[in-house]
Amino acid sequence: MDEYIDKADIEARKRALQVFRERFKEIFEQIKRGENPTIMLPKRTLANTIYDEKRKLLLLGPEKLRRSFFDLHESKKFMQTLLMARIIYEALERDEYPTIRDLYYRGKHTIVYREPGGRRHEENTWDEQRESDAVIRDIEVFTGLLREEMLILSKEKGKVVGNMRIRSGNDIIDLSKMGHGAYAIEPTPDLIEFIDVDAEYVLVVEKDAVFQQLHRIGFWKRHKAILITSAGQPDRATRRFVRRLNEELGLPVYILTDADPYGWYIYSVFKIGSITLSYESERLATPKARFIGVSMTDIFGHGKKKPYLTEQERRNYIIKAKDADIKRAYELRNYRWFQTKKWQIEIDIFLKKKAKLEIEAMTSKGLRFLADKYLPEKIETGDWIE
Amino acid sequence: MDEYIDKADIEARKRALQVFRERFKEIFEQIKRGENPTIMLPKRTLANTIYDEKRKLLLLGPEKLRRSFFDLHESKKFMQTLLMARIIYEALERDEYPTIRDLYYRGKHTIVYREPGGRRHEENTWDEQRESDAVIRDIEVFTGLLREEMLILSKEKGKVVGNMRIRSGNDIIDLSKMGHGAYAIEPTPDLIEFIDVDAEYVLVVEKDAVFQQLHRIGFWKRHKAILITSAGQPDRATRRFVRRLNEELGLPVYILTDADPYGWYIYSVFKIGSITLSYESERLATPKARFIGVSMTDIFGHGKKKPYLTEQERRNYIIKAKDADIKRAYELRNYRWFQTKKWQIEIDIFLKKKAKLEIEAMTSKGLRFLADKYLPEKIETGDWIE
Repeated sequence: MDEYIDKADIEARKRALQVFRERFKEIFEQIKRGENPTIMLPKRTLANTIYDEKRKLLLLGPEKLRRSFFDLHESKKFMQTLLMARIIYEALERDEYPTIRDLYYRGKHTIVYREPGGRRHEENTWDEQRESDAVIRDIEVFTGLLREEMLILSKEKGKVVGNMRIRSGNDIIDLSKMGHGAYAIEPTPDLIEFIDVDAEYVLVVEKDAVFQQLHRIGFWKRHKAILITSAGQPDRATRRFVRRLNEELGLPVYILTDADPYGWYIYSVFKIGSITLSYESERLATPKARFIGVSMTDIFGHGKKKPYLTEQERRNYIIKAKDADIKRAYELRNYRWFQTKKWQIEIDIFLKKKAKLEIEAMTSKGLRFLADKYLPEKIETGDWIE
Repeated sequence: MDEYIDKADIEARKRALQVFRERFKEIFEQIKRGENPTIMLPKRTLANTIYDEKRKLLLLGPEKLRRSFFDLHESKKFMQTLLMARIIYEALERDEYPTIRDLYYRGKHTIVYREPGGRRHEENTWDEQRESDAVIRDIEVFTGLLREEMLILSKEKGKVVGNMRIRSGNDIIDLSKMGHGAYAIEPTPDLIEFIDVDAEYVLVVEKDAVFQQLHRIGFWKRHKAILITSAGQPDRATRRFVRRLNEELGLPVYILTDADPYGWYIYSVFKIGSITLSYESERLATPKARFIGVSMTDIFGHGKKKPYLTEQERRNYIIKAKDADIKRAYELRNYRWFQTKKWQIEIDIFLKKKAKLEIEAMTSKGLRFLADKYLPEKIETGDWIE
């Protein structure tokens, strides 16, 4: 027994080992029965990725994939899957905390074999991490366990401050007592326990520097918010943490990004999930997340809504959209979850004006403007996009 | 008086405002005397960047630059400098916390003027952030204040855990009670107060994912270390924080990076400073920082030293160096601070083998190998590079 390892991790390992034994037992049974060992798992293809209108989530569809040992096209993939499963199983047993990069290295070797005639063959288990990562995803889908539940760690960028206390490992952490710094979210946010929370909503800021500014003037204290930054494209832990705040504590979640298709996509990843990894959405996405801004109607106004920027400010702050932005906007316009009236207005204004804007343009008007007028006013009047 | 703003910030503002008034007073005096207003400041050029052998730091040399209002070549730069100084001064007075991006936006506008003959001219204050950033650096050099002392904030990636307590803002934070998460370092680390520390050394890990792993198995508890990650190329706050731990607390600092020229450069930025920003080195660099690994002699051995990797492991883990890596290695070999015997051996082995290695190769041998054998053994036997 290692005094430095906490109990939640030990319990999580036991659960994962149990699931592995149950799910892979069938393969041993097949071998014992003299059958062709076969793994069946949902297809992780775009064609098998379905947008669930009701739950507002990207999910894997019903199509299954067979992966058999005695099938020339599938035997390498079959063996890769079992090799990776073994490596993860061993890591779980040995109290290891591998990363996906470790798992790639651990499995990487060359298999040498000779034909009965004597001819020598060499085959690498995998050459690139892309291959081993795909196998890890297959194992996630096959076992129904997220990699975090297998105690696989990764780098994390997400930070949080606010009026709440959490338990992580053996510690209780008061997220309102972080000084000018912040709490860096752990890679296994399902093991966090929410102890008490005194907040009215969650504000997720795309940019770390804007998070620092809002934190420093006490935004979350003034407005009873949990303040989070994803520091760009959100990682899995930040997404899961935000989802849990929304689902378990019932806190509304507002996402603040730059006014451009890249910012919209960040919002989309928080809300719907990533298209290539739809199997995780069910656990990581926050379907009720709201886009608070910066919106195109904030910049230019629309109908009765007045813009937050003057003509002069627009002239100084607006950035001309690049071809890649415009291409991205056309793509997003086709996604089902962007086919609401408000989003179509946003995208149309963007395509007409070919203009984008950074959050910093709002802080240039004064940090107090962003903190004490723009954000509270938009939240109060319901001026967000679902 | 704003209850949410802490006293350290108010004091810092007062100090910065005072320095601004003193330094810029001379220009008002010049105008009052009817002279050509002129700013004199050290040249921030490569030619005026000097490696101080004794202090082992990159510093600005004695060359000065004159920037006058009535000089056609310099008047725009002169006006930009005064414009930026005004914006920073106002932000200090108004309790703002701008970022360099904000400062760019705040100053960005078009000046329109007509010749006596009526011809209309337009001139932008600046077009790109590159320009306004250069002006901020000039003001740092001119005032002798780092941007952090002007309460200019920025995004921060650095994280820390360990047996120490600090005061930041109005809070006391126990860095040994962060659960599986970590403390995200604030953008103004000079305002941090070290309260008590029970550690024998500082280990800085380049990679966040490896930091997560070492943290999770309690490395810093077992070995009485302060564990830090820079999450790649270190930002200013992380560098300043590490420097203060070394200088004020006398803790040895070990830097752990990948075994490649990119990792060496990260070490170099911690130790010597960045070549383009040598004026900050005096405050941000840690001249006594030690490169703990992963070294080329760890991989291949050298003389009596046995390698940590077997022949088989080298075959699986080593990555072929790219042309860019080799070019970088030749550049680094010419830097004065890499011209020590140990570094020349490192670079020579790299150039001969054309091989690089990630830290993860060490964790693939087992996280316990990295934590309980490799690192402690190297620290105990003094197997680092100065």
